[in-house]
Amino acid sequence: MSKEITPREQDYSQWYNDLVLKGDLADYSAVRGCMVIKPYGFTLWENMRDNLDKMFKDTGHVNAYFPLFIPKSFLSKEAAHVEGFAKECAVVTHYRLMNDPNGGGVVVDPEARLEEELIVRPTSETIIWNTYKGWIQSYRDLPILVNQWANVVRWEMRTRLFLRTAEFLWQEGHTAHATQEEAVEETVKMLNVYAQFAEEFMAMPVIKGVKSESERFAGAVDTYCIEALMQDGKALQAGTSHFLGQNFAKAFEVQFLNKENQLEYVWATSWGVSTRFVGALVMAHSDDQGLILPPRIAPLQVVIVPIYKGQEQKEQIDTKVNIIMKELKSLGISVKYDDNDNARPGWKFAEYEMKGVPVRLALGARDLQNNVVEVARRDTKEKTSVSLEGIAAYVQQLLQDIQTAMFEKAKAYRDEHITNADSWDEFVKILDEKGGFVFAHWDGTPETETEIKEKTKATVRCIPIDGSGVEDGACILSGKPSKQRVLFARAY
Amino acid sequence: MSKEITPREQDYSQWYNDLVLKGDLADYSAVRGCMVIKPYGFTLWENMRDNLDKMFKDTGHVNAYFPLFIPKSFLSKEAAHVEGFAKECAVVTHYRLMNDPNGGGVVVDPEARLEEELIVRPTSETIIWNTYKGWIQSYRDLPILVNQWANVVRWEMRTRLFLRTAEFLWQEGHTAHATQEEAVEETVKMLNVYAQFAEEFMAMPVIKGVKSESERFAGAVDTYCIEALMQDGKALQAGTSHFLGQNFAKAFEVQFLNKENQLEYVWATSWGVSTRFVGALVMAHSDDQGLILPPRIAPLQVVIVPIYKGQEQKEQIDTKVNIIMKELKSLGISVKYDDNDNARPGWKFAEYEMKGVPVRLALGARDLQNNVVEVARRDTKEKTSVSLEGIAAYVQQLLQDIQTAMFEKAKAYRDEHITNADSWDEFVKILDEKGGFVFAHWDGTPETETEIKEKTKATVRCIPIDGSGVEDGACILSGKPSKQRVLFARAY
Repeated sequence: MSKEITPREQDYSQWYNDLVLKGDLADYSAVRGCMVIKPYGFTLWENMRDNLDKMFKDTGHVNAYFPLFIPKSFLSKEAAHVEGFAKECAVVTHYRLMNDPNGGGVVVDPEARLEEELIVRPTSETIIWNTYKGWIQSYRDLPILVNQWANVVRWEMRTRLFLRTAEFLWQEGHTAHATQEEAVEETVKMLNVYAQFAEEFMAMPVIKGVKSESERFAGAVDTYCIEALMQDGKALQAGTSHFLGQNFAKAFEVQFLNKENQLEYVWATSWGVSTRFVGALVMAHSDDQGLILPPRIAPLQVVIVPIYKGQEQKEQIDTKVNIIMKELKSLGISVKYDDNDNARPGWKFAEYEMKGVPVRLALGARDLQNNVVEVARRDTKEKTSVSLEGIAAYVQQLLQDIQTAMFEKAKAYRDEHITNADSWDEFVKILDEKGGFVFAHWDGTPETETEIKEKTKATVRCIPIDGSGVEDGACILSGKPSKQRVLFARAY
Repeated sequence: MSKEITPREQDYSQWYNDLVLKGDLADYSAVRGCMVIKPYGFTLWENMRDNLDKMFKDTGHVNAYFPLFIPKSFLSKEAAHVEGFAKECAVVTHYRLMNDPNGGGVVVDPEARLEEELIVRPTSETIIWNTYKGWIQSYRDLPILVNQWANVVRWEMRTRLFLRTAEFLWQEGHTAHATQEEAVEETVKMLNVYAQFAEEFMAMPVIKGVKSESERFAGAVDTYCIEALMQDGKALQAGTSHFLGQNFAKAFEVQFLNKENQLEYVWATSWGVSTRFVGALVMAHSDDQGLILPPRIAPLQVVIVPIYKGQEQKEQIDTKVNIIMKELKSLGISVKYDDNDNARPGWKFAEYEMKGVPVRLALGARDLQNNVVEVARRDTKEKTSVSLEGIAAYVQQLLQDIQTAMFEKAKAYRDEHITNADSWDEFVKILDEKGGFVFAHWDGTPETETEIKEKTKATVRCIPIDGSGVEDGACILSGKPSKQRVLFARAY
């Protein structure tokens, strides 16, 4: 099993695939566009999910579960929604197989055709709002703050592991409110939760913004997003939070009696992040030796490798390692002792570098005599000889330092790659030569956005909501007046 | 919204539905046979899932995720498996919808037909063993101890909330081993994990046994199960653990080089429990006033209801309740203060009885003067006036007592309902008049089992593995020799 990784410079796309496959995060499957998430990759996802889930619950949300299938007619009820989602989806038409009368295995039983086809959910607004209709009568039933962890299917033609797969795992929050203000507040609150999670747990700086009309979620009034920058200078939309207005309430006739005893349509939000986050994490930090994972969500934080000759040395090292392991675990640090004698230390070093384990301790007989241990950090590949006295506290601090350093490094890179452009030539040149975000004026029309996309493959990633770029100017392409710069980039 | 519950005596089946719907566990959905798991029910499932997940991890397992879809041809690869699962399943035949040229909303695009139909997984042995083929070369790659939490679909014709739904949530463990012994050991180990969980967390006594050939999982060599008894005297299979032999390894050509450098087929197990567990829990303990939930997995363990006149009394009670809440939370107890002034205390009492909250505290102004609080336990409906000094420790102990009492009560009922039968008349009489398990001799043939089922609707629930009932006897129906009694019952 070759563990060589294609360097980023040579082929960024292949580098990414190598990391995902050789880093044991995921595998291709027998089903077109669907992947297998391997245990190491799934533990990473679990660590993301569990931390996000806690943040959702801390902000008052509860989990529930809605059906995998959506009746075909539901998709048509919200006009914009059907345009966005009815195109690429898995359609269940039959509910039984039978033995092939000609002896060719099993075939679809033509008698078992569904009266109405079922769609495997591409997102759940329709089935959920159809359900909420039965749950909401009065303002006392509001708000509903529900989240669902689920699998969804979108029949993508070009797929990439984690970044774009036919089936993916995600969470989708669906909330119902009595007022527009409260729904908008919820939309922004969850955007902030995503941004906080991305920055504090994934060490991945993000820009919070609003999507342009053409990039808006099908059925939303406003789509908020967090945008991150990958190492090849392309942007990646990492999470979205939608203010849905009363669109789904109207489509599914969900009204409530307000305090004045009048019937009103309910206000809605939805918000989601998916296993795409794993792809973003990989591309944001890793290098040509493998994954670099932030300590707060790494499946394994510390690995210890013994270096010895003979059983006597091994036993001395074992004894010391057991003490260190116990201390680390008592601090809540995940640690593995790899004393597999089928592999040499150098091979192990490369293996754990590949897998992005943040800290490696290598302990030899000489080290033991000197009461030291070699500590290697994955992010910078620095090695230091550290006293065994207080090693657990040292490692704990180091993990925090790595988390901070990874964020700072990614932020510095991101900040260097936000470039103002004030002419079309400059705009194109930055996209082609430097990459990253180009901060430029746009006249706000879908026509201009489309033309820019056709000419450069760059899209409006977002209109920042922090007020940056608010100034009078002229559209980079049309020259028409603009009141705010927006962020353009080529994107995943 | 009526909260009246049909009494068990009147209509057990309706009683069950009332509890699930009015106890806010689940709701019907717009999709035939699929349910919506409501937040209260989902929290209950989360508590089950999280505790089981910890037990799986403590026994060395890791989670992964495999595709929702299975190529139709995979189902045919294992002969018994296809017979068991190809009959009732959701079949995806198309991957695109289009606007109806005649203006009737969206229709399936006839051009977008899949070359090979995809089956929504009814269980994942086939897709997983097809994947394991790529992961296993040598004995060093074994064992693989993987579990998956997922949704599955079986197109059942008659569905019941939680007990039998077209889509349900479950976990499925799929392990791969180098030897038969190790695989059998794993099968039994996981059966024991299920039994321990059912008894210690769900307070539901179970019998561990092996299934007869006709009740075996399609593709298994042996199916182990845990069987529980419901209050109407019917049995319920609550979990299964399968020794799959080399059946799937042979079907998917999964071989490994053993230590002697010879190619061998890999040995397999699979094991699963599902949201059916929730249905079992409801039926095992609840009464005509509502749910009775065991404290260790109850979504909410304690509710506090204030009883007051006027704002001054309310404020005094609030102050005390805040202290109690803090103490309870510091002991890891989940607690809610329901001071909603739209509902009267009596209404709240009924509501939390319906929802099965194990302990209710009612605090009035007079109580406060006397430094006491009224403590009501849901399982026995006993009410006690308890000193507010040390109330948190009292409640903590009470929750443990309730957990134990619920198990003991269910076990006494179950034990009373295991009845030996030594003649056919006796067998039929017990089934019809007393219900529960009938412990009787059986000649071991599928023909006799089928005849018994046709005559009485009772099936062989399991052959106990604890050695009970091992003795020479004569089959209850055929009179042929038998070496062991087996447990018969009518079942869900």
